[in-house]
Amino acid sequence: MDLKPTKPLSGFIELLPAAQRFVDACAARMLNVLRTCGFSYLDLPAIERAEVLTDKDNWDEIETQMYLFQKGDTKMGLRYDGTVGLSRYVAGHLNELTFPFRASQFSKRYRGERKQRGRYREFYQMDMDIMDINSLSTNYDAEIISVIQRTLNSVSEFIGDNYVLIGSRPFWDALFNYLGLTPDQKKEIFILIDKRDKIDDAEFSSWLADILKNEKLENEIKSVFTNGYKYFAGKSDDLDMAIKELTDFVATLSEMGVKNANIDLSITRGLAYYTGLVFEFKLKDYPELGTAAGGGRYANLVEKFSKTKIIGVGAAIGFSRIFVALSESGKIDLSKFESGVDVAVLVMGNDNMPYAMSVLNAFRDSEIASVAYLDAEKKFKSQIEYSNKIMAKYSVIIGEDEVKNKVVAVKDMFSGNQQTLSLSDAIKLVRGNA
Amino acid sequence: MDLKPTKPLSGFIELLPAAQRFVDACAARMLNVLRTCGFSYLDLPAIERAEVLTDKDNWDEIETQMYLFQKGDTKMGLRYDGTVGLSRYVAGHLNELTFPFRASQFSKRYRGERKQRGRYREFYQMDMDIMDINSLSTNYDAEIISVIQRTLNSVSEFIGDNYVLIGSRPFWDALFNYLGLTPDQKKEIFILIDKRDKIDDAEFSSWLADILKNEKLENEIKSVFTNGYKYFAGKSDDLDMAIKELTDFVATLSEMGVKNANIDLSITRGLAYYTGLVFEFKLKDYPELGTAAGGGRYANLVEKFSKTKIIGVGAAIGFSRIFVALSESGKIDLSKFESGVDVAVLVMGNDNMPYAMSVLNAFRDSEIASVAYLDAEKKFKSQIEYSNKIMAKYSVIIGEDEVKNKVVAVKDMFSGNQQTLSLSDAIKLVRGNA
Repeated sequence: MDLKPTKPLSGFIELLPAAQRFVDACAARMLNVLRTCGFSYLDLPAIERAEVLTDKDNWDEIETQMYLFQKGDTKMGLRYDGTVGLSRYVAGHLNELTFPFRASQFSKRYRGERKQRGRYREFYQMDMDIMDINSLSTNYDAEIISVIQRTLNSVSEFIGDNYVLIGSRPFWDALFNYLGLTPDQKKEIFILIDKRDKIDDAEFSSWLADILKNEKLENEIKSVFTNGYKYFAGKSDDLDMAIKELTDFVATLSEMGVKNANIDLSITRGLAYYTGLVFEFKLKDYPELGTAAGGGRYANLVEKFSKTKIIGVGAAIGFSRIFVALSESGKIDLSKFESGVDVAVLVMGNDNMPYAMSVLNAFRDSEIASVAYLDAEKKFKSQIEYSNKIMAKYSVIIGEDEVKNKVVAVKDMFSGNQQTLSLSDAIKLVRGNA
Repeated sequence: MDLKPTKPLSGFIELLPAAQRFVDACAARMLNVLRTCGFSYLDLPAIERAEVLTDKDNWDEIETQMYLFQKGDTKMGLRYDGTVGLSRYVAGHLNELTFPFRASQFSKRYRGERKQRGRYREFYQMDMDIMDINSLSTNYDAEIISVIQRTLNSVSEFIGDNYVLIGSRPFWDALFNYLGLTPDQKKEIFILIDKRDKIDDAEFSSWLADILKNEKLENEIKSVFTNGYKYFAGKSDDLDMAIKELTDFVATLSEMGVKNANIDLSITRGLAYYTGLVFEFKLKDYPELGTAAGGGRYANLVEKFSKTKIIGVGAAIGFSRIFVALSESGKIDLSKFESGVDVAVLVMGNDNMPYAMSVLNAFRDSEIASVAYLDAEKKFKSQIEYSNKIMAKYSVIIGEDEVKNKVVAVKDMFSGNQQTLSLSDAIKLVRGNA
């Protein structure tokens, strides 16, 4: 019989136990921050109706990347982000939720795109969103940024420092209107600006010239990056509003204790659904990981599901692309995640099993991570080798003498020292060093 | 524009925040038990190659329930259990894992079956497995049962007491051989025995008669349930071995501290892949939930992926079918899960925002779950109403006076008492009651 393949599908992640423990430890810290910041964790379905996932607007763009399928008469697919499901959920529970509603998610998403370095087809994102009915103060945009920074800082031991770049959709809209651009030109320039950090100035200029075919307009656009956004103050009311919003926003971020925030109008978040301020977090020590988190304000996401006007601000942390990538990078010391247990109980013969089991249960009752080697007729050498391999901190050895005297032999697996202790003293010893 | 549907697909779960907090609290306790018992948590892909998920053996049975689809040339599908992926993983990492290898999983599985009460199409199971190369002591079967009981006991506050019923595949195999049954008869009787708790004695008898058409044989089968399994002692070597294994096993369970374990040979786990002892956990207070957890020993699962012989024992807890069902039953008091925050910071005007933000950050730095109402120009009445609705334990009110005097006004939302405190005293007060 031919053996079946043992590798997962390309683009799908599975980790060895130590790397998994590292990733889980990071997730636990970050989720604790979100809980502390009052976000309600939601666990939404991974499968949605196809009509919920796709729009005429973005069908072409999204559909080729999506996992779509049919079961009976129902067309459905796997979610590609957390926003679509959340919008549906909020619209469906308007009367049961308290607004402003704070939601966090941490779940797998699916994109069947061509595999690239650092891109997965199944990956975790960690989302946080704040939504309200009819209006939402931009203070919440600042809070989302503050919460992301708090979340990333909780694992700075591994990912180092972060910084955030702030962009503004309204600024570009106002500038495009002031310059009298066509809708097609607006869209193409948006795509170009989004790519600005991946191309050089000459390429940017020639691409911009292709779109605008007007040197004066081209220079105006370029001046955003050379002269800064305040250069456009006084040109139109909309530009003034957008400039004031950005300036005030940076002041609010500072009040909230956000460090390393800068305005960078090349941050546009591409063609996505954002309608206000947008932002991206980067990791200072890991530029190769690209955007660690990104988000912004959206006004029209829920309107597909409800006539109630819902304004939101939200962001997603690219959890797998950061932490799975780091676990594979060799830059993280995974050795302290190698061990999952503090104690291995080794049992010298089946006759000693009842007492050994009471010892194991006592350790577990004390919340000390512990296992027993239960093939009790195996030789001591095999058993201690197992304890060594799983990197247990202590071996607790149960033989005839220990049973008779109601004690345990505790071997420190690092020093090699062994001592005979009462069970309660052994628990104290291990707990002191766990 | 027509609005899109806001309900999830039938058979898919989404919970309101309080029910989600209840379910998450149960999962966290249970996963902590598995960690304490030394199981390495694995997070495997939800999508597998179709050839990994399906066999000629069970294609018909499984395929109609499976979510299968194609992307490019690759046929794939969503996992329907945790065992297939784990078998593939272990076979693919034989040299990187330490055996006996203990794995836990807690992940979504998918079965597109017709929706029944308590059956979901997307649901969580919590798995634990212990695998070794070539051989594995039945002490590990006992340990798995002990660990499941420990896991269920960690949430007994909600689910009450449990008991476990032990069955034996080898006993039935030995009995069928002793009685000289054909392979077809064996298979059909297995299906019948598995259904025994859902039908009455008369139906059982007539079904059995249809299969065997031999009154003597029918009576022998029935005598397992009337006279007990020990009635077959001395009939064949295989029967004697199976009876000894069961008897010894119950003694080991007792040594391990397992409560409420009984032999019940009608437990067979249907046509699944088990080859040794099998077991099912039930909840005393919730018979309507059926089997809370089930599992057993398997010898042939990994052989599809590797020539190395791997023996395993494992079990799955039907997490969603227990906890989602309970959250919807009205039998759990969800009121203590209604609140996700201890403190709501209310800000009386934008001028007070900088100080309010430093207060919010101080609470969050102290790991006190806290939010701020950031639409600071809203009236006190709206803000306190929000605090009330989210069931914050305290409102911390920041107005002009508080900013000037560098204090905070703390309102106990249950008693209604309000006092002015220094920030550090406020943190102490909340922490004392959080």
